[in-house]
Amino acid sequence: MAIRAVVWGENVHEQTNREVQALYPDGMHSTIAAALNQDKAIRATTATLQEPEHGLSKARLAGTDVLVWWGHAAHGKVDDAIVERVQRRVWEGMGLIVLHSGHFSKIFKRLMGTPCSLKWREAGERERIWVINRSHRIAEGLGECVELPNTEMYGEPFAVPEPLETVFVSWFEGGEVLRSGLTYQRGAGRIFYFGPGHETYPIYHHAGVRTILRNAVNWAHNPARPWTAIADAPNVPIGKTKEPLVQKGPRLHADGEAGLR
Amino acid sequence: MAIRAVVWGENVHEQTNREVQALYPDGMHSTIAAALNQDKAIRATTATLQEPEHGLSKARLAGTDVLVWWGHAAHGKVDDAIVERVQRRVWEGMGLIVLHSGHFSKIFKRLMGTPCSLKWREAGERERIWVINRSHRIAEGLGECVELPNTEMYGEPFAVPEPLETVFVSWFEGGEVLRSGLTYQRGAGRIFYFGPGHETYPIYHHAGVRTILRNAVNWAHNPARPWTAIADAPNVPIGKTKEPLVQKGPRLHADGEAGLR
Amino acid sequence: MAIRAVVWGENVHEQTNREVQALYPDGMHSTIAAALNQDKAIRATTATLQEPEHGLSKARLAGTDVLVWWGHAAHGKVDDAIVERVQRRVWEGMGLIVLHSGHFSKIFKRLMGTPCSLKWREAGERERIWVINRSHRIAEGLGECVELPNTEMYGEPFAVPEPLETVFVSWFEGGEVLRSGLTYQRGAGRIFYFGPGHETYPIYHHAGVRTILRNAVNWAHNPARPWTAIADAPNVPIGKTKEPLVQKGPRLHADGEAGLR
Amino acid sequence: MAIRAVVWGENVHEQTNREVQALYPDGMHSTIAAALNQDKAIRATTATLQEPEHGLSKARLAGTDVLVWWGHAAHGKVDDAIVERVQRRVWEGMGLIVLHSGHFSKIFKRLMGTPCSLKWREAGERERIWVINRSHRIAEGLGECVELPNTEMYGEPFAVPEPLETVFVSWFEGGEVLRSGLTYQRGAGRIFYFGPGHETYPIYHHAGVRTILRNAVNWAHNPARPWTAIADAPNVPIGKTKEPLVQKGPRLHADGEAGLR
Repeated sequence: MAIRAVVWGENVHEQTNREVQALYPDGMHSTIAAALNQDKAIRATTATLQEPEHGLSKARLAGTDVLVWWGHAAHGKVDDAIVERVQRRVWEGMGLIVLHSGHFSKIFKRLMGTPCSLKWREAGERERIWVINRSHRIAEGLGECVELPNTEMYGEPFAVPEPLETVFVSWFEGGEVLRSGLTYQRGAGRIFYFGPGHETYPIYHHAGVRTILRNAVNWAHNPARPWTAIADAPNVPIGKTKEPLVQKGPRLHADGEAGLR
Repeated sequence: MAIRAVVWGENVHEQTNREVQALYPDGMHSTIAAALNQDKAIRATTATLQEPEHGLSKARLAGTDVLVWWGHAAHGKVDDAIVERVQRRVWEGMGLIVLHSGHFSKIFKRLMGTPCSLKWREAGERERIWVINRSHRIAEGLGECVELPNTEMYGEPFAVPEPLETVFVSWFEGGEVLRSGLTYQRGAGRIFYFGPGHETYPIYHHAGVRTILRNAVNWAHNPARPWTAIADAPNVPIGKTKEPLVQKGPRLHADGEAGLR
Repeated sequence: MAIRAVVWGENVHEQTNREVQALYPDGMHSTIAAALNQDKAIRATTATLQEPEHGLSKARLAGTDVLVWWGHAAHGKVDDAIVERVQRRVWEGMGLIVLHSGHFSKIFKRLMGTPCSLKWREAGERERIWVINRSHRIAEGLGECVELPNTEMYGEPFAVPEPLETVFVSWFEGGEVLRSGLTYQRGAGRIFYFGPGHETYPIYHHAGVRTILRNAVNWAHNPARPWTAIADAPNVPIGKTKEPLVQKGPRLHADGEAGLR
Repeated sequence: MAIRAVVWGENVHEQTNREVQALYPDGMHSTIAAALNQDKAIRATTATLQEPEHGLSKARLAGTDVLVWWGHAAHGKVDDAIVERVQRRVWEGMGLIVLHSGHFSKIFKRLMGTPCSLKWREAGERERIWVINRSHRIAEGLGECVELPNTEMYGEPFAVPEPLETVFVSWFEGGEVLRSGLTYQRGAGRIFYFGPGHETYPIYHHAGVRTILRNAVNWAHNPARPWTAIADAPNVPIGKTKEPLVQKGPRLHADGEAGLR
């Protein structure tokens, strides 16, 4: 069965900015989904901020293996309840790809627990994405680096936790660097942050970037059965211990009582 | 100058439960603070849920090097604004020691980005805390293990991110295990989670546990100047680049405009 | 194409000890290979210490996706040149599963850079392998734990580097614990250490352990093209730089000269 | 008591190359030691390849808290027995700072377990060392970056294991990047790799680099008592178990017998 990917797009600048419209007439989410659908192992659809529940109903998320997130101008308009729902699905095992300005999305900040801040400059300069972890699934089919002629600079310090793996580090014409490809795991869910993607440049039309997106979805897919009980805190009563045990000392809870939380 | 530690106590069961009162007549926070003050390098005071701003005003936190957190029955009563304030100070460099049932505190869940759930059993069974990382600052002065005659079992799976370091792993009489001493970093702040500490047993009177608490405060103290700008996302304009640069391509932002977030 | 696994067995105690012979009449390596071959995605063969080049010729290793290593009595008899060859293949991308007493094998110590020492006791006690990272590929199909009625105790501190992931932690009847399932990466090669496997108990006949072995081989398989140039240190001469560059300052090396190493 | 640092220098190009002599008339090791001795908390001395036992006798190493390693032309001339001795002391708790071309030293490769290879170019180009982990002890007193006007390019992929922490990432004029400040721990010993330091440029005379060296020594110093037993594998006999235990099943070893290794 194909990996069920949903590309979530904020879909704001595509409606309001002529340059963005010209580059992404059907929205950035559509372009990204088309890139993913070039891989037969992926079946990608889209969802946007403007849809009911931002297109991320419980049922939709339950049927999503990997969610790709692009947002910029409207992070604050994403409903907290939906953010919690997405976080929960990541814990259960849904993969999450966070793109570019998504570093400041509610969902990414919640999963990282840090400010996720960085430096920036919108000068259309050159970016060279170096492959650090060359045999990583996300780097499949790439050479030693991917070059973008025009990009928004995102520079260190990038206030995220130490990653599980550093896959890419970017060099910028203006003199900065960024750890531009980082992996994390939260619960059963795999997370990949990818730096490039400013909306005024044709970055999601770039062949190398499209390869990375497809790779990332393949990598982030966790085929394990969803860990739906992950947030439970089950009591293991004395009668059901692995080793024989007798009750000792005082206790707060009566038999069968739920724990505090 | 001594490390300025604040021991935050929820101070609920000490008021409502006779056994807890007997063990901690001045509150668990006072017992923990006394343990810390046995180390001349630490100057520990206390704060509780019931105080204005839970005892954690901006000024108080600004003057705190390491915060120790014990909560259980009233996680939900901790004001979100205070939680955000504590999180911010951790990012800036304040150390945080999260004790026992604090695994379900708002502040710990926010910093981890995961459910932080685990198994539990209140049977007064034996726990043996094995030192995994023997030369770690937090293990200073300990032997190969610390034994608690009566403890609440906290068992795996403990739904937290892979830690920076695993310092302790606990063995339980009833057959479970727990990674009971874990380190993390979020921004400039060091975080240590320590498993033992159920309020119906005299755990914070135990010499080995008190050694661990003092060690943890010493370890978590980051003497670097607070990174107060950590959540900023500064623009680096073209005139101030490290390398000469000319503007290329279209852009969203006018000169000097703030970034979106 | 099936994953090409080679199970390397030291094959010493199977020849010299009656109990081991009774449990593993065809050698432990054969039992392990049979366990792997129950998975159609794997095609496992064996190699032993006694074969020429210990059964690990260059050609054999070049055609191996995952190597499983069991050794105990004869670590010192493994030829250093073969160890180097195996290490090289791990760097290039071959997976490596190190079992039980293999913690003291030359290959594991070389890849870890640490003593890899631990405590031990051969008392036939009970071991309970707790699944820590529940949705990990290596834990597929397991419940919350796997119980072995008779095992050799291997206890902490286990002197290995902090792992990429802690998949299993074991509880022992005699009171110890062990991080018994740990993952690492060295170069392009994935490494999994698994604790259980003493030769006087029927551990590799245990259904849960056999599931873990099959899972581990699937996980350790890196389908990327072998990174054969990984140990090279290529010079990037001035004429071939990514950005225009002029030679500045004195230098040690003439054009085209090899680097020092 | 001051931190006892030993700066080990290969001391080859200082004898054979006029430019290196001009920059480092007393040897690079002397310049580095002088930089360290500007910090009253450090007492640095030197050792060189040419001394008996390369200046690293057992007694000398036993009295060393942090060893700084610079080698390039003569990695192969370092005695394997001395390398093993140094590795052993790192395991016990001695800090190790590996500089520049030391990436290919025997000691670094042994501790990493990987090829430690990278790209290089000796063009005297500009390097900008970005501070990634800004409140890290090793970054104390630095601004957002340190600039070197002339450096040897060392570029990714740098074939080392995922680090504990990425402290610095370097930008190079010619278009490459390097994770140029990485921390590791092996046993009780802390390890820091620092990229810059080519011998034909005055890099160890640079104020920012000298600050980094002093910081690194302070960070790498582990004041814990040396873990001299780290490579032992002690048997825990049945009579001395933490929990009562009876012998079950067959065993290989008689009481009191040493383990295999």
